[in-house]
Amino acid sequence: MTAEWTERVLDQARAAKAASRTLAMLDEDSKNRALLAMAEALWERRADILEANRLDMADAERNGESAARLDRLRLDERRIADMMEGVRQVASLPDPVGETLESFSRPNGLRIERVRVPLGVIAVIYEARPNVTVDSAALALKTGNAVVLRGGKEALRSNRHLVLALREGLRNTSVPEDAVQFVDRTERDTVDVLIQATGLVDLAIPRGGAGLIQRVKENAHVPVIETGVGNCHVYVDASADLGMAEAIVINAKTQRPSVCNAMETLLIHERIAAQWLPVIARALWERGVEIRGCERTLAHLREAGVAAPQGLLAAATEEDWATEYLALILAVKVVGGVDDAIAHINRYGSQHSECIVAEDGEAAERFLSAVDAAAVYHNASTRFTDGFEFGFGAEIGISTQKLHARGPMGLRELTSYKYVVRGNGQVRR
Amino acid sequence: MTAEWTERVLDQARAAKAASRTLAMLDEDSKNRALLAMAEALWERRADILEANRLDMADAERNGESAARLDRLRLDERRIADMMEGVRQVASLPDPVGETLESFSRPNGLRIERVRVPLGVIAVIYEARPNVTVDSAALALKTGNAVVLRGGKEALRSNRHLVLALREGLRNTSVPEDAVQFVDRTERDTVDVLIQATGLVDLAIPRGGAGLIQRVKENAHVPVIETGVGNCHVYVDASADLGMAEAIVINAKTQRPSVCNAMETLLIHERIAAQWLPVIARALWERGVEIRGCERTLAHLREAGVAAPQGLLAAATEEDWATEYLALILAVKVVGGVDDAIAHINRYGSQHSECIVAEDGEAAERFLSAVDAAAVYHNASTRFTDGFEFGFGAEIGISTQKLHARGPMGLRELTSYKYVVRGNGQVRR
Repeated sequence: MTAEWTERVLDQARAAKAASRTLAMLDEDSKNRALLAMAEALWERRADILEANRLDMADAERNGESAARLDRLRLDERRIADMMEGVRQVASLPDPVGETLESFSRPNGLRIERVRVPLGVIAVIYEARPNVTVDSAALALKTGNAVVLRGGKEALRSNRHLVLALREGLRNTSVPEDAVQFVDRTERDTVDVLIQATGLVDLAIPRGGAGLIQRVKENAHVPVIETGVGNCHVYVDASADLGMAEAIVINAKTQRPSVCNAMETLLIHERIAAQWLPVIARALWERGVEIRGCERTLAHLREAGVAAPQGLLAAATEEDWATEYLALILAVKVVGGVDDAIAHINRYGSQHSECIVAEDGEAAERFLSAVDAAAVYHNASTRFTDGFEFGFGAEIGISTQKLHARGPMGLRELTSYKYVVRGNGQVRR
Repeated sequence: MTAEWTERVLDQARAAKAASRTLAMLDEDSKNRALLAMAEALWERRADILEANRLDMADAERNGESAARLDRLRLDERRIADMMEGVRQVASLPDPVGETLESFSRPNGLRIERVRVPLGVIAVIYEARPNVTVDSAALALKTGNAVVLRGGKEALRSNRHLVLALREGLRNTSVPEDAVQFVDRTERDTVDVLIQATGLVDLAIPRGGAGLIQRVKENAHVPVIETGVGNCHVYVDASADLGMAEAIVINAKTQRPSVCNAMETLLIHERIAAQWLPVIARALWERGVEIRGCERTLAHLREAGVAAPQGLLAAATEEDWATEYLALILAVKVVGGVDDAIAHINRYGSQHSECIVAEDGEAAERFLSAVDAAAVYHNASTRFTDGFEFGFGAEIGISTQKLHARGPMGLRELTSYKYVVRGNGQVRR
C-alpha cells in the first residue's frame, strides 16, 4: 500500500474520532432520527446498491466462488428491505448511553458516579457479507460510537454503495456523516493501519473466520474483541434423559451447522455409551452427519453391529478434538464422567458454548461451575448463544475472550464508562 | 533467550492455567486462609528476603541508580510488615467472584444468569518495585486468578525470594502453589513469550513507565489493560472560586508530582488570566514548580511585572502539551473558554483524570460530559483517581483504555463473567 493510502486511512480514523466527539453528546432521539434516515436512504439508493452488487456477484462467479459464498454476497430488494428493518429495530432499542451504573459518596464529601459512555471509534474488519456493513454502522451509531468499516474484497462495490447511502442518510441529521467511514481499499495493510491506530481507534472487532481473527489479534496495538470461534461440546451424562439428549444433540449439530454456536464434539458418559451410541449414531447418520469417533466409540458401534452409511464414520485423531468443523461432521468421545468431560472441554474448547445433558443436579452444577466458557448450558441446545435469543435485541458478535465482554455482545457491550466526580474544593492530604 | 527458556516460561503459564482451574472453584474462606498464610510466610522468610534485597541494592548502587530508584527497590522489616498488612487487607475485602450480575428468563423457559467468574491467568509485567510482586499475587488470588509475575532486573533476587515465601505460604492451603509463578529471567523475550501465550494467559497488565506499556501493547497477542500514563489537566473557568482553584492546582501539581494522577497542564480562562496568572505563578514558584507557558501566559506575566525565579519560567513548545512530566514542571495555557479547554484536553490528554474548577454549573456539566477521560472532576483535585480514594480497598492500576475497565481497577476489575443457562430440553427452531 502506498504511503498516501496509509495517510488516507489515518485521516478517516481522525475524522471518525472528531465525529465521535459530537456523537457522544447526542441524545437518544437525535441518534434514532439519524438511524431512521439511514434506513430510508438505503431504500432510496437501492438501484445503485443492487447494480454495484451485480458487478461484485459477476466477479465472484467468474472467480469460481462457492454457492455458499455467492449467497452470502448476493443482495436483492428483499435483503435491502431486511437491512432497513434491521436498522429500524436497532433504533427502537433502548439507548444504554448515559445510564448511571453506580453512584456513591466518600467520607470527604466527593460524590462519584459511574456513567455509561460510548467507546469512541470502533473499527470493524469483516469479510464477504455486505449486511455486516449496515448492521455494524447501525449498532455503533446507536451507542454513540463512530465506525470505520473495512470489508472484504468480494463485496467492495456493494459496501461502497451501502456506505454512500448511509452517509447520504445522515446528511440532514445531527449525526455527522464522518461517523461512518469506509476504507475503500482491500489490501491487508489497510487493516494493519487501522488496528495499530492507537489514540484514534478505541476498539477493533474482527467479524469473520479464524484466520482473520488471528491476524487481527496478532497485529493489533489497539484493544480487540475476539469473536466467533466456537468449538462447542455437548456432554451427555449417565443420568441424562436420553430423549432430551437426542433432541439437543441433533439440534446443536444439524439445525445450522455453519455457525459458531453449533456443536462440534459430543462427549458420552461411559455407562450409557454401549446402549445409546447406536441410537444417536443412527439419528445423526439419517441427517447426513459424519461421525469421527474415539476408539471406544468405534468399538461400541462395531459391537452393536450397526453399519455406518458410506463415508459417515471415521476414527478421530487428536486434531479432531480441536477442530471447529462448521459442517455436518461430529467428533464423538466416550468419557469417564463429568470430571473427564470438564477436563476435555477446558483443554480443547474455545470457551464459547458448552452443554451438559443430565438429570443429576449435582453433576450439572459441577459442570456449569467448572467449565470455562462464555455460556454454559444445562439441558438446552448450545445454539441459543446469540444476542437475539438472549433478548438483547441486537448482536455485534459473540466474544470468546474474557476481557470486557463475554458471549453475545449487544448494545451495552459497545459502551464503556467514565467516573464523574463532583466536589467542593477537595484536595488530597 | 534459549528455546529451553521459552518452553520453561510456557510451562509456567500452563501450570498457572491448571492451578487457575482449582482456584476458580474455591470459596472465599479458602482463598482468605491462603492469603493469610502467604502474609505469615513473608514474615517468617524476612531474613532471606532482606538478604536478597541487600544484594539487589548493592548492584543497583554500583550501577549508579538514582536515589529515587534505590528507594523504590529497598526493603526493610518495616516494608515487609507493610506488605503483610497489605495482603491481610486484601483478604478482608469482600470476594466479588460468584456474584450474580443479572438474571432473567426467556419466553421459551430458559433461565439465564450472568455470574462473575475469575479471568483465569493474569500476567503482570513490572519494573523495579518489589512490593508489586506481593500486591499483584494477593489481588489475583483473592479474585480466583493465577498470576505469572515478571518483574524488573534490579529486583530479581528480591522478587525471587518474595515469591519463594508466597509459594511456601500456600503449601498447606487449598490454593495450589502453582497459582503464583515467577519468571526468573529478565530478558525482554520472556515478556514476549508471556504476552503472546494465547489460550494460556487471559490478561496482561503492564505496571510501569510509558515505554514498558507501549512495548507490551505492540507485541501482545493476549488482551492487555493499559495503565497509568496520565497527562492530566486542570481547567480554571472564569467563574471559578480562585481560592479553591489555587488549592486544587497546588495540590494536583505538588502533593506528589511523580504519580500518574498529578496535573501536567493548567488551562486558564482568558477572562481571568491577566489577574490570576501572577497569583498562581508565585504560588507555584514558591513550591519550586517550573512553568512552561504559552505566549499569552508569558505576556501576562511580563505585563504584570512578576519576575520568575531562575530557571522556573520557559516558553512552552508543542511537545509540552503532550508531555507527562512526573516532576515539578507545569505547562500553562490561556484558553478561550470551556469549549477550548475541552478541545485541548481531548487532543492532548491521555484520558486519565481531568478537572474543571468553576462555579458556573452549566460549564461544569459541559466539561464533565464532553471530556473523554476515565475520571472527570468538578471542583476537586485530580489526585483522587485511585482505588483506595474511590473506596475500592485495593488497586492493581488505573486503566486509561476504554475496554473492560476504566480508571482505578480494584478486585471487581480482575474478574469476567459467564452466562449460566438452565433449561429443560429447549432446542432452537
